[in-house]
Amino acid sequence: MTIKKPLRFVALLGSLRKDSFHGTIARALPSLAPEGVTVTSAGSIRELPHYDADLQAEGFPPALLAIAAAIQEADAVIIVTPEYNYSVPGALKNALDWLSRLTPQPFAGKPVAIQTGSPGMVGGARAQYHLRQIMVFLDAYVLNKPEILVGGMYGKIDSETGEITDEATAALIAQQLAALARMVRPDE
Amino acid sequence: MTIKKPLRFVALLGSLRKDSFHGTIARALPSLAPEGVTVTSAGSIRELPHYDADLQAEGFPPALLAIAAAIQEADAVIIVTPEYNYSVPGALKNALDWLSRLTPQPFAGKPVAIQTGSPGMVGGARAQYHLRQIMVFLDAYVLNKPEILVGGMYGKIDSETGEITDEATAALIAQQLAALARMVRPDE
Amino acid sequence: MTIKKPLRFVALLGSLRKDSFHGTIARALPSLAPEGVTVTSAGSIRELPHYDADLQAEGFPPALLAIAAAIQEADAVIIVTPEYNYSVPGALKNALDWLSRLTPQPFAGKPVAIQTGSPGMVGGARAQYHLRQIMVFLDAYVLNKPEILVGGMYGKIDSETGEITDEATAALIAQQLAALARMVRPDE
Amino acid sequence: MTIKKPLRFVALLGSLRKDSFHGTIARALPSLAPEGVTVTSAGSIRELPHYDADLQAEGFPPALLAIAAAIQEADAVIIVTPEYNYSVPGALKNALDWLSRLTPQPFAGKPVAIQTGSPGMVGGARAQYHLRQIMVFLDAYVLNKPEILVGGMYGKIDSETGEITDEATAALIAQQLAALARMVRPDE
Repeated sequence: MTIKKPLRFVALLGSLRKDSFHGTIARALPSLAPEGVTVTSAGSIRELPHYDADLQAEGFPPALLAIAAAIQEADAVIIVTPEYNYSVPGALKNALDWLSRLTPQPFAGKPVAIQTGSPGMVGGARAQYHLRQIMVFLDAYVLNKPEILVGGMYGKIDSETGEITDEATAALIAQQLAALARMVRPDE
Repeated sequence: MTIKKPLRFVALLGSLRKDSFHGTIARALPSLAPEGVTVTSAGSIRELPHYDADLQAEGFPPALLAIAAAIQEADAVIIVTPEYNYSVPGALKNALDWLSRLTPQPFAGKPVAIQTGSPGMVGGARAQYHLRQIMVFLDAYVLNKPEILVGGMYGKIDSETGEITDEATAALIAQQLAALARMVRPDE
Repeated sequence: MTIKKPLRFVALLGSLRKDSFHGTIARALPSLAPEGVTVTSAGSIRELPHYDADLQAEGFPPALLAIAAAIQEADAVIIVTPEYNYSVPGALKNALDWLSRLTPQPFAGKPVAIQTGSPGMVGGARAQYHLRQIMVFLDAYVLNKPEILVGGMYGKIDSETGEITDEATAALIAQQLAALARMVRPDE
Repeated sequence: MTIKKPLRFVALLGSLRKDSFHGTIARALPSLAPEGVTVTSAGSIRELPHYDADLQAEGFPPALLAIAAAIQEADAVIIVTPEYNYSVPGALKNALDWLSRLTPQPFAGKPVAIQTGSPGMVGGARAQYHLRQIMVFLDAYVLNKPEILVGGMYGKIDSETGEITDEATAALIAQQLAALARMVRPDE
């Protein structure tokens, strides 16, 4: 019997409101992760100012450095985000814009999984491929499958009780986390 | 002889730093616009907080309402923006996220032109098509041609003197503004 | 009372198989079009060889010229297509590749509407934005809304009887055709 | 001293004309590959009919099975292709549409690199991200960096002598092939 190396994943959340459905998903990740995998928050994107090269010249914001360190130390990153206007939320993109300015690049070579949801049927698909294109520049490797696109989100997630009430959705997320773990340690 | 109806365009700028190359382009637009077309700023995106539905519940930010009014009253909008990480800057996307929450939608049915530049050769192409996808949701109509993709931007724009030093670039921008004017008043 | 100018739309179909769901949609269009609007086929893309500049040097294929003439003479084009591998079917893209080589460009300035469907929930969204990007080069103007994304297509379209059995889908297509007619003649 | 395992790469070419610039690039790959890496053609996409599920029901085309076997047996695939109309050539997409119908999927888990060029400055960037989105469905893993985008292609490639005359372009392609080899065997 071999014991697998424990893995640490961090979740980066793209929505800011308190009772966010995506926040509910992010908080459910630890309980859906495979054995030996912990999932913690990469930190909040809320405190980051809008990216501005003049600001950068004065020094990187402490909140940025905390997120960067969390990503750097993690074995993989899960980005959980709503779709706004057929793309990535501005606040999340802003966090990625700041992160891209650091050396070394926190995302370079990092395995990443994406999870989106929407009230409608498309489940955030339009944001996912924008995020994948952004990740090419950041040199992250985004897991292909399974894709998590939670359509009809309001009927599958209870943001008040903090539960993913749809079993198929929870099972698919668990499968994705397992696939992400295999991406990190392919030989085990 | 017919006198054409005067047109008002507004420019929405995607970069925040003081000596931005894209700011230089935006400030040059009035002098490149066809006769009878004025170009003014739609206002700064800097003061908008990160979009958050909880914040929205407390009321829309005044800076947002000013930008929205400028767009609403304009005959067309020119978005001048750098590409960050193969997509639209987070701060600009955040402005669009806020604008999308207003009723009536400021961009609905509005003619829009896009101008991007980059130090490298690609000239911001990757950001342009993301922005076009976003504009589908906002129901704006984006001018097809000519596309303004300023590759090798550092050699074509002098952000210190505030001039577009490359004549071909200035001429192409003038052509785009004329095409945008024709899009607004096709029968003239 | 004013009488509206009659309009002619043509449909370009992206799938080749005989009992295609998308063919069923395309054949239903005439009955869903607003009064005074006819919808006919733009011709089959099947006979076009793979685009090859050496072949082009020998002359354009007759099947291409027939499609080009149909598009040229039409007031608007409806592209009805499945999504293959998260993008536009190769055979449809090949037809667009040939069409782009003609002078004048058949699609230049032409209003276009897109209709996609899929067995899953996403309804072909991934193909739609690729097609929109292609249409920028072809200088067509693609209608923004309503978007036709038929998710769960097998339960909404009966390709044996040739009927769109889901009333909401049929109604939305009728709305899109009416919006396309308004795009062609905005002042009526 | 360790001896690295020899690797076999195959190149899939997206253009059909005889004196294609991209064909010139593809034929130069063996001489640019790192020691121990061979590059051969995956076979021509020319003979594949347009994808049609009715045709598939009669059996897969032999030309398809040959390409599929070449990909399956290869350690990695290099897709060398022009951009047509801001996307992937129809003929290449058609080959991918056929390949996606096979079980097992030839591209599943396969490392892939993309090389595009164009006469203009953008170098095929618009096609690259469409191809990357397609590759998500096919479950291939596309190398992030370096990206090969040959802008101003006519001055850098001599399709008559079959040479890449621009040294920087040749060097970058060699770097990409080396990076692809490291993607295949990360521990060496």
